[in-house]
Amino acid sequence: MVKSENGKFKSEDKGREKEQMLGISVKKEENFSEWYSQVVFKTNLADIRYGLQGFIVHREWGIMILRKIYQLLEEEVEKDGHFPVLFPIAIPEKFFEKEKEHVQGFAPEVFWVTEAGGEKLNEKFALRPTSETAFYSMYSLWIRSWKDLPFKRYQSRICVYRYESTTRPFLRGREFLFFETHDAFRKHEEALEQVKKDMKIMENVVREKLFIPFLFFKRPKWDKFAGAEDTYAADCVMPDGKISQIGSTHDLGQRFSKPFEVTYLDEDGKEKYAYITCFGPGIWRIMAAVISIHGDDKGLVLPSSIAPYHVVIVPIYFKGKEKIIDEYAEKIKSILEEEGFSVYYDDTKDKTAGFKFNHWEMMGIPLRIEIGPRDVENEQVVVVRRKDRGKSTVSIEELSEKVKEELEKNDELIKKDSEKYHSIKECKTMEELKELFEKDELRGFIKVPFCSDDEEGENCAERLKEMFALHVRGTLLVKEEKPKEDDKCIVCGKKARKIVYLAKSY
Amino acid sequence: MVKSENGKFKSEDKGREKEQMLGISVKKEENFSEWYSQVVFKTNLADIRYGLQGFIVHREWGIMILRKIYQLLEEEVEKDGHFPVLFPIAIPEKFFEKEKEHVQGFAPEVFWVTEAGGEKLNEKFALRPTSETAFYSMYSLWIRSWKDLPFKRYQSRICVYRYESTTRPFLRGREFLFFETHDAFRKHEEALEQVKKDMKIMENVVREKLFIPFLFFKRPKWDKFAGAEDTYAADCVMPDGKISQIGSTHDLGQRFSKPFEVTYLDEDGKEKYAYITCFGPGIWRIMAAVISIHGDDKGLVLPSSIAPYHVVIVPIYFKGKEKIIDEYAEKIKSILEEEGFSVYYDDTKDKTAGFKFNHWEMMGIPLRIEIGPRDVENEQVVVVRRKDRGKSTVSIEELSEKVKEELEKNDELIKKDSEKYHSIKECKTMEELKELFEKDELRGFIKVPFCSDDEEGENCAERLKEMFALHVRGTLLVKEEKPKEDDKCIVCGKKARKIVYLAKSY
Repeated sequence: MVKSENGKFKSEDKGREKEQMLGISVKKEENFSEWYSQVVFKTNLADIRYGLQGFIVHREWGIMILRKIYQLLEEEVEKDGHFPVLFPIAIPEKFFEKEKEHVQGFAPEVFWVTEAGGEKLNEKFALRPTSETAFYSMYSLWIRSWKDLPFKRYQSRICVYRYESTTRPFLRGREFLFFETHDAFRKHEEALEQVKKDMKIMENVVREKLFIPFLFFKRPKWDKFAGAEDTYAADCVMPDGKISQIGSTHDLGQRFSKPFEVTYLDEDGKEKYAYITCFGPGIWRIMAAVISIHGDDKGLVLPSSIAPYHVVIVPIYFKGKEKIIDEYAEKIKSILEEEGFSVYYDDTKDKTAGFKFNHWEMMGIPLRIEIGPRDVENEQVVVVRRKDRGKSTVSIEELSEKVKEELEKNDELIKKDSEKYHSIKECKTMEELKELFEKDELRGFIKVPFCSDDEEGENCAERLKEMFALHVRGTLLVKEEKPKEDDKCIVCGKKARKIVYLAKSY
Repeated sequence: MVKSENGKFKSEDKGREKEQMLGISVKKEENFSEWYSQVVFKTNLADIRYGLQGFIVHREWGIMILRKIYQLLEEEVEKDGHFPVLFPIAIPEKFFEKEKEHVQGFAPEVFWVTEAGGEKLNEKFALRPTSETAFYSMYSLWIRSWKDLPFKRYQSRICVYRYESTTRPFLRGREFLFFETHDAFRKHEEALEQVKKDMKIMENVVREKLFIPFLFFKRPKWDKFAGAEDTYAADCVMPDGKISQIGSTHDLGQRFSKPFEVTYLDEDGKEKYAYITCFGPGIWRIMAAVISIHGDDKGLVLPSSIAPYHVVIVPIYFKGKEKIIDEYAEKIKSILEEEGFSVYYDDTKDKTAGFKFNHWEMMGIPLRIEIGPRDVENEQVVVVRRKDRGKSTVSIEELSEKVKEELEKNDELIKKDSEKYHSIKECKTMEELKELFEKDELRGFIKVPFCSDDEEGENCAERLKEMFALHVRGTLLVKEEKPKEDDKCIVCGKKARKIVYLAKSY
């Protein structure tokens, strides 16, 4: 027995390892928080034992899923005319200071690099908490004429750094995965048009391919991104009824283009400031939503668009039949790969088929193919869906077609089930809110009449936070909702000018 | 005219912009260094004007090429059984200190994060200069039994940080792109076997797909990676005759597994230390080699495996014929995309066809397709190879087949031409070296008899560095070369026990 570096004995971890093999030991609806931790650890998404708070190790299964999420987003933003770039992690202090609200918003959570090679740096730099100031310092050099606009760039597969006090894998970290677009335009209307395109990208990827339902809000003035004119954001409901922001896009107006001198020579010969937007789908938060909303008591449930493998083949070995089963399985694998499916063949010999069934269900692979000696004989396979364990016997001739169908069916089932946490309740009075509060039913979105989403509504918002831990998420973006003539603000009782959505949040 | 943030006037940069449009203005063989800078800047690979030494902005064309290099490497290491992971950028001070040579080697060039959220951190952390200590601190938790071995993981698309004094895009940076594998084994033989597999990965990607010729050396003892038992590295010759290390793999023996307690329970019931290797293809250096070795006076020349587009279509508009040309070009594009080729259609209306020819030649796209009114009429296109501007007229029926052939032909021509800097000279005496030195012919590799590549040879190596700026790159790895019976060390005159390769280096 060897003492490990944190002073524990390895055999203890071996206990944990054994537990890992035995699947998820709590029910999601009974203890969501523990269920989440177990799924993250046991399916090899992330390991929190690195020894620095908020810095997790992304493990194999996590990266294999996350890179697919990245690919989907990269394809979408490139279709929308964005080109990839990669900026330094370093933000010089002088960049930050150029936009006043921005530096005030981010300064409290910035990590600073102050030393190198054994000496103090002349100019310390921050680890990027976000990259507006980096991008626009170069945009001022790159953008020349109205012909260069719109100018749309993005960076992907990077991390950002924020000194958060509480941290949780894929929900909040001091280091977390990031994706950002930064776009410059001639006109403010074009910038606002881009906000809609960014929303559409969220729809195309997060709703259509990952089956995460969400609402898009215009955030109240007091809750916008530091330095933005307006912030628009997508919120989804997690199984504990709290809301998670899974993406946001910001109309920065000319607030950054002025201090950073992002100007262009317009057709009329005049030098003008560009209008800028930036968009950040929350890679981690999207991951957390996929884990939490689709997962079940057995573990992960993955949509086919991001599953590391579409299909796992599990052989059911009988003594003396191992070879013919392996050969047949390899043939099945080839047929499917030929058709573009990704397939993992689990031919380990020291584990039972039952163990493997449980393991790959925990890992969330959409389809399992079982192959026993009789299947070889009859030139067939058994296909099992992860979501509902629906089982069918499929002949080798119709294999590819049937696997395609079953993948679609599995996705449909995931999609159908995905709305279960996505609730919207309506309240008109504080009494109604109190009632929900007392019954512990302040879950999902709660739609209320409200005085204002400008500065003057902030006091009412504070009240709701103090009393119920409810946050004003904003006004709905897609379809504008107007209060009725006699609607009163749920807090102050003044005439309601807005319908806002409240929720507990991460 | 607006004053930009660095105090220069934008119109100056506009001058530079104009220059950028006008192509490369120096000849590669006359002024390689300026040629290189121009190619990097004008083809949008990188921009060095971020304002922090050694931190470059990777621009659009650069990222589009680099991510293809990453993909090729990711495919290869996954085929070899590696799974992807992602470790924190942060290396706690206590990790570093565990391996004495390692910390001594890296300490002088490490960046330290010491503050966050306005206060001093209790424990400062380094920005990873490399990730051995991060990986192995977790391997000690992840690896349990001999059944877990070999344990092979990699991380890709990350940056590392080193406080270098001189910096150059893709050659040396304070922030630069990285790729690393870390593998643990039961036996030392298996670890040494992995070194060969790593070499094979370099062969498969860098030589076979990117056409960069190189030699693989075992580095002399005094030039190995800090903390390694032995270092093996690939060197290629750049156009200025200097050598660039484009990848290295290290036999770490048990030097890290002991302090980091990377142990496993062996079949015999005993807890044993693993043998570890790590491998890092130099992403930046590979990029620099592609730019420098293949490029010509017109600009970049890209192998088809990493070109952002295989084909650019340039329309030759005649008045009134724009629409039929655009329609025909879109058809050609669809046909090619259907067959898996990536195609860019440059249908900008305010630039001449000649301008576009020059521009896309500079950018290095392997094939250009020209379409004029006559081509539409005759249902044909003109295909031009980038490498030698070989031109052919191709009917629409044979389009895909011919494009495939022409891409291969272009690649063949690149490959054929790639050996021109890759020279190996032989010297037996200091007089011969001096003669080469005086004729300015100390380019490429120089093969000499040498006393020893152990510690005792270090003095002779120092001599060569002082006299000729020549470095001992090591002994050839693939075929062992033995000195002749009467060969003497080129420096000290003692009996030669090794044949080593010398070179000037980056």
